[in-house]
Amino acid sequence: MAKIQQHTQVPATPLPIVIAGALVKGKENYLTIGAYGIMSIQPPVVYISSMKAHYTNAGIKETGYFTINVPPAGLVRETDYCGLVSGREIDKSRIFTSFYGKEKHAPMVRECPVNAVCRIIKTVDLPGNDVFIGEVVEYYVDEDCLADETPDPKKTLPLLLYGRLYRKLGRAAGTAFAAGKTLMKKL
Amino acid sequence: MAKIQQHTQVPATPLPIVIAGALVKGKENYLTIGAYGIMSIQPPVVYISSMKAHYTNAGIKETGYFTINVPPAGLVRETDYCGLVSGREIDKSRIFTSFYGKEKHAPMVRECPVNAVCRIIKTVDLPGNDVFIGEVVEYYVDEDCLADETPDPKKTLPLLLYGRLYRKLGRAAGTAFAAGKTLMKKL
Repeated sequence: MAKIQQHTQVPATPLPIVIAGALVKGKENYLTIGAYGIMSIQPPVVYISSMKAHYTNAGIKETGYFTINVPPAGLVRETDYCGLVSGREIDKSRIFTSFYGKEKHAPMVRECPVNAVCRIIKTVDLPGNDVFIGEVVEYYVDEDCLADETPDPKKTLPLLLYGRLYRKLGRAAGTAFAAGKTLMKKL
Repeated sequence: MAKIQQHTQVPATPLPIVIAGALVKGKENYLTIGAYGIMSIQPPVVYISSMKAHYTNAGIKETGYFTINVPPAGLVRETDYCGLVSGREIDKSRIFTSFYGKEKHAPMVRECPVNAVCRIIKTVDLPGNDVFIGEVVEYYVDEDCLADETPDPKKTLPLLLYGRLYRKLGRAAGTAFAAGKTLMKKL
């Protein structure tokens, strides 16, 4: 099987899609992001990376907070829309119902079944992007999406971006921290 | 629909699974990671976050390089195994066939259809984790996984971790930068 060297680019993997929320000039604003990931389980730390031109960045810098909202597949149009238009021109507070936890500078999306409030602990300055690293300080889940107190993906229906398509999560392929045990004696 | 506040934790989203490669004490070592993501498209920048106790970290710090290898669903046992055992006790160079590009300190996994060499541009020190931020400097794809010069997910079969299950990528839910256009006139 031949390996083809291509021009340098980010590796082709599915990207979990989240909607980042922030208060910008006192108004709720929402931005769809694929440049999201976890950095630490304990304490819970995640990041979002947002291009410097984005309207949202100033709000995050000003308040020190952003939120993570995990959109369900049923909101794919609204999710895509939040990545297409800028809060500079469009009032994105009207797309969703905002709600707040203890932190009044961190708007969350009620229609998203999983929500987290993140307090900035570090910012990394890349040439074209601000990378906001935040510790999760509040966490909310829709009651009817829980199975054994854990969000059930059959109910939360998270979206992934691969190339130019949003996709749903697919079938199970194995159990983590278990599937590999069969190899322990062989290798 | 009631929102339940839970203890703070990383939000429930699917996590793309990659195998990080590094040369540790001159030997190829591989570590399975869900704490991976993209930070910038141009230049292509990605990160991995690895617990400080991990054997791999010293190799990355010493060489200044790590690799990203995207395992196909058919390698779920080997992938899980690489997250279960430490290179301190097990010689993980035997699990896969290693190959090298121009950079001789950055081993890649031949059996993974997508591979990238990353040069560290920044390290973020979290309480329990080293976050290695790297620019992609080489990129390889299996020729037979390409469709229109782009890796086809039906052939690369990437894995996602959600809770304790590895899952495959599922069905299309919409087209990015297009699905939201229908809302442009309405909102």
